[in-house]
Amino acid sequence: MHGARAVSGDNPCFMDQWRTAIVRSEESAIWIHGHDVTQLMRQTSFADTVFLLHRGRLPDDRERKLIDAILTSVSDHGPGAPSCATARLVASGNRQSISAAIAAGILAIGNEHGGAGELCMTMIADGIHQAKRRSISFESAAADLVARTIERGERVPGIGHRVHRTSDPRVEVLFALARTGEEEGEGVRFMRAIHAAVAQRVRPLPMNIDGGLAAVLSDLGFPPEAGKFIFIIGRVAGLTAEVAEEYAREKPMRVRIPVEYDGQ
Amino acid sequence: MHGARAVSGDNPCFMDQWRTAIVRSEESAIWIHGHDVTQLMRQTSFADTVFLLHRGRLPDDRERKLIDAILTSVSDHGPGAPSCATARLVASGNRQSISAAIAAGILAIGNEHGGAGELCMTMIADGIHQAKRRSISFESAAADLVARTIERGERVPGIGHRVHRTSDPRVEVLFALARTGEEEGEGVRFMRAIHAAVAQRVRPLPMNIDGGLAAVLSDLGFPPEAGKFIFIIGRVAGLTAEVAEEYAREKPMRVRIPVEYDGQ
Amino acid sequence: MHGARAVSGDNPCFMDQWRTAIVRSEESAIWIHGHDVTQLMRQTSFADTVFLLHRGRLPDDRERKLIDAILTSVSDHGPGAPSCATARLVASGNRQSISAAIAAGILAIGNEHGGAGELCMTMIADGIHQAKRRSISFESAAADLVARTIERGERVPGIGHRVHRTSDPRVEVLFALARTGEEEGEGVRFMRAIHAAVAQRVRPLPMNIDGGLAAVLSDLGFPPEAGKFIFIIGRVAGLTAEVAEEYAREKPMRVRIPVEYDGQ
Amino acid sequence: MHGARAVSGDNPCFMDQWRTAIVRSEESAIWIHGHDVTQLMRQTSFADTVFLLHRGRLPDDRERKLIDAILTSVSDHGPGAPSCATARLVASGNRQSISAAIAAGILAIGNEHGGAGELCMTMIADGIHQAKRRSISFESAAADLVARTIERGERVPGIGHRVHRTSDPRVEVLFALARTGEEEGEGVRFMRAIHAAVAQRVRPLPMNIDGGLAAVLSDLGFPPEAGKFIFIIGRVAGLTAEVAEEYAREKPMRVRIPVEYDGQ
Repeated sequence: MHGARAVSGDNPCFMDQWRTAIVRSEESAIWIHGHDVTQLMRQTSFADTVFLLHRGRLPDDRERKLIDAILTSVSDHGPGAPSCATARLVASGNRQSISAAIAAGILAIGNEHGGAGELCMTMIADGIHQAKRRSISFESAAADLVARTIERGERVPGIGHRVHRTSDPRVEVLFALARTGEEEGEGVRFMRAIHAAVAQRVRPLPMNIDGGLAAVLSDLGFPPEAGKFIFIIGRVAGLTAEVAEEYAREKPMRVRIPVEYDGQ
Repeated sequence: MHGARAVSGDNPCFMDQWRTAIVRSEESAIWIHGHDVTQLMRQTSFADTVFLLHRGRLPDDRERKLIDAILTSVSDHGPGAPSCATARLVASGNRQSISAAIAAGILAIGNEHGGAGELCMTMIADGIHQAKRRSISFESAAADLVARTIERGERVPGIGHRVHRTSDPRVEVLFALARTGEEEGEGVRFMRAIHAAVAQRVRPLPMNIDGGLAAVLSDLGFPPEAGKFIFIIGRVAGLTAEVAEEYAREKPMRVRIPVEYDGQ
Repeated sequence: MHGARAVSGDNPCFMDQWRTAIVRSEESAIWIHGHDVTQLMRQTSFADTVFLLHRGRLPDDRERKLIDAILTSVSDHGPGAPSCATARLVASGNRQSISAAIAAGILAIGNEHGGAGELCMTMIADGIHQAKRRSISFESAAADLVARTIERGERVPGIGHRVHRTSDPRVEVLFALARTGEEEGEGVRFMRAIHAAVAQRVRPLPMNIDGGLAAVLSDLGFPPEAGKFIFIIGRVAGLTAEVAEEYAREKPMRVRIPVEYDGQ
Repeated sequence: MHGARAVSGDNPCFMDQWRTAIVRSEESAIWIHGHDVTQLMRQTSFADTVFLLHRGRLPDDRERKLIDAILTSVSDHGPGAPSCATARLVASGNRQSISAAIAAGILAIGNEHGGAGELCMTMIADGIHQAKRRSISFESAAADLVARTIERGERVPGIGHRVHRTSDPRVEVLFALARTGEEEGEGVRFMRAIHAAVAQRVRPLPMNIDGGLAAVLSDLGFPPEAGKFIFIIGRVAGLTAEVAEEYAREKPMRVRIPVEYDGQ
C-alpha cells in the first residue's frame, strides 16, 4: 500500500533493471567494489570482505583487527540468549530447513537484544554533535542525555547486562585494541561518559558489548545501522553452531515450557 | 543486551512459568478465553475465533461479518505484491520448507506494505482525540493532521494505491457493510475527512484498503496493532495459495532479475 | 546455484512476466479465481476465501464448515507450543516488527510440530492406493505401513500428543462434523486403521489433530501440502494473539532459560 | 504434535535446564569451547572463531585460510541472487526491522540456491565410500553416481551455474589454496570426477562454488550440514550490504514485478 505521494504505474510488461554499486559479475569474473573476488580469496580475510562490502575499500590492519574482534565478541553467548534460544526452538519443531532455524534466530535480534548498538551509535553521534555545538564537555552532554532518556522512561542503550552485572569482560579488551597509543576515539570517550553518567544518575552498571562495539564502529566511521549489521554477521556464526548442536544432541520437540493459565 | 534499568539474575536452575490468559489446555480439553475449542469447532466460524482470540469474547453478527470481509479483502493481491513476491522468491531457492516461504512473505509486511493500517489506527485515534479536546470538526482536525504530516515529508497512511489509482474498490464495500442504518462510525468518518483533506492539499487520491480496515477496526474497538495483526491473518491465506501455485507451476530458480552495475 | 541441467541466460535487460491463475487485478477491480473480491466480501466468509484460493471454486456448506472447524481447532494451543513460544521469544528481543515475531512462529512449524498433517496426507494416499491395488483391507494396509515405519525407526505421523495423552478432544468432533449420515470418508477410515494398528503394534496412543485434519482434508480432495498450508493459516490467528499478549503483559528480555554447560 | 513414540509430561512447573558444550558464561568471563573470548578477540580472527564454534578447536594456518576464502567466495553475488533479491524485497515493504530483511534473505537459501553444498557433501561422502568399498576408481564411482542421479530426473549438485556458464572463477582458486604441494584431497578429487562424468554424460558444465566449497569442507573434515552453515555465514555479510544499499538508494515499494493473469 502506498501513502499520499504514491503515484506510478503497475503491471508493466517489463521490470525495470535493479541497480547496484556493490557487486559486478560476468561470465568469468566477480568483483566486489571493484576487487576481483578471486584476488580477495587469495589475499584477504573474511573481516576484510565484511569491511569492503560496507565501506567500499579494504581496511588497514587496525581496522581489520577491530572488525575481527567485534565479530568474535558477539558470535555466541550460549543457548539462553534470545537469538540462540529461538534458533533452537525452531530446530525443535522444524528439522526440514537449516535456513529456517538461523533466520528465526536473527529475527530475535532487535533494539532489545543484540541490536542496541544501532541506538547507541545514534546516541553517540547526537551526543558528540551536541557537545561540539554547545561547546560543553562530553561529560556534560552525556549527563544531559542520560537525564532526558530516564525522564522519558527509556533505557540507556549500551548499558547493563543480565549476566555480566558488574562488568562485561569484552568491552575493555575491545577498547584496548582500538587505542592508538594513549589516544581513545571520540566514540569511546563519549560512551565512557555515558557509562559514568548512568553510574551517577542510577547506580554503577556495566557498559555492555553493544555499547562497546557502537563506540568503536562510530570511531571507524560506520553509520548507525552498522550496529545491527555487524552484530548480525557475528551472531550468525554462533547461531549455526547452536543449531548444529541442537540437531546433534537433542530430539525434536524436546523443549518443555512451563505455562500457567491466569485468565478467568 | 539490556539497558540501564536491567538488573536481574540469569542462569537460574529453573525457568519461571510463563503465564497466559488466552488458552488453557488439559489432558482432555482446550479452552480459548474460556470457550471449549470443541464447541467453537461445532458452532462458530474461523472469523469468530479470530475475534475471540483478540477480544476475549465472541463477536455479534455484524462484528463477525466485518472480520470476514476484512480478512477476505486483503487475502491476496497477486504475485506482484511484495509479500507474495517474497514468498515466491523463497520458494524458488528453498523448496525444503513451506514455512520458510510463508514466513518470508510475512516479513515483507511493514508500514510500507500491508501494515499501514496500524499507523492509520494511531492517526485516527489521535485525530478524534484532538477534535474532541479542541472542540473542532473532524474535517478541521484531519486538515491539520494532513498538513503536519506533509510538512514532515511523510506519507499520509491509508491513502494512495499503485494499482487502484482513483478508487480502491474494496473500501466502499467495507464501509457499506459497517454502516448501521445511515450511521457511520467515528473511525470511518475520520478517515473520510483525511481522504478529503488529502484531495484538497495534494490531489484526489483513493483511500486504500489499509485505510479502510483501519477505520472499521477502530470502530470495532481494536487497538492499533490490530491493523497489522488482522492484515497478516488475511494475507497468509493468499501467501499459501501463491506458494502452492509456485510449487505446482514453476521450476526452482526461475526468477531472473535484471541487474545493472553502476559503481565504479 | 544450479544443477547439471541448468543452462540459461542471466542479467537480461528485462524480467519475464510472472504468471498466475489466482488473482487478476485492474484499476477498479480484483478477482480471485474469477470471483469479484467485493462480492466475496459481501456474500461469503473467510473460510470460503481460503477454500477458493486453494481449490479454484467456492465450497458447499459442509466443506465450509469443515474448513472453519479445522482452522479453529489448530488456532492456538497456548504459549508452550513451539510456534507460540518462538513468536514470544522474538517479541522479547525485537519489538520493532510484529511481522518478525509472527514469521518466526511460523518457522517453527515443520514435520515435527504442526506440519505432520502433510506427512499424514501422503501416508493416507499411499495406504489407500496400496489397499486398492493389492485388494486388501484398510486394516491390513495400515498394519503393514505402521510396521514398516517403525522398522525404519520413524514415528507414525498423526499419532501421539504430549498433552492429550489418551485422546485429543478435537479429533472426534472433527470426524463427527465430517460424517455424512453414517458414512465416513476413506481418509478418516484409513486414519482410524492407522490408529488401531499403532495401538496393537506399540500401545494405545491418541490420534492427534494433525492426523485428524489430514484425514478430513484428504477426503475433501486437498493435496498433501495442504496439511501444512491449512495448519499455518489457522495457527497464525493464535500467533497474533500470543504476540499481542506478550506486548501487553511482558517486558522485553523477560525470558530466562536455565542453561547448563557440560563441555570440558 | 508428536508421532507414535512421543510420551512424556507437559506443563511442568519448571523447565529442564538446557545443556550446551559450546559456550560457558559467568559474571566475568565467557568461554567458547574452553577458549576465553577476550583472548580470542586479542589473538585470533573471525574465521578462527567460525572454525572453533564448529570444530571445538582452533584451525591451523591452512584451515583458517580456506575458511576465509570460502566465506569471501560466497559473500555476495549481486542483487539478482534469490537470497539478495528477497532481502531487498522485504526491505522494500518493511523498513522497521533490519533483522526481517536479513532473515528473509537467509530463508531463500535451500538446496536450490546456495545450499547445494550440503547435498554435494553427502554425495562426496557416499561416492568415496562406494569407491573404497567396491575397490573402484573415483572416476567409475562418479560415473555411476551421475548416471543414477540423471535417471532419477534429478540435478547433480555442485555442477552448473546460470551466470558462469563455462567456468566458475572461484572454484580453481579455492582448490589451489587447498592444495598441499601437488596433492589434492579426496573430496576435491571426487568432485573433479563428478565434473568430468557430467561433461561426458550431459555436456561440459562448470563446477560451481557450492561444489567447490563442498569438496574442500569435506577434506577439512566437516559434516554435510556445514555446506549450508558456512554458506549462510558468508552470505550474511553480503545480505547486510545489499540491505544497506537498498535503504540508502531506493524508496520503499520501488519494486515493480510484471504479472500476467492466465487463469480463466
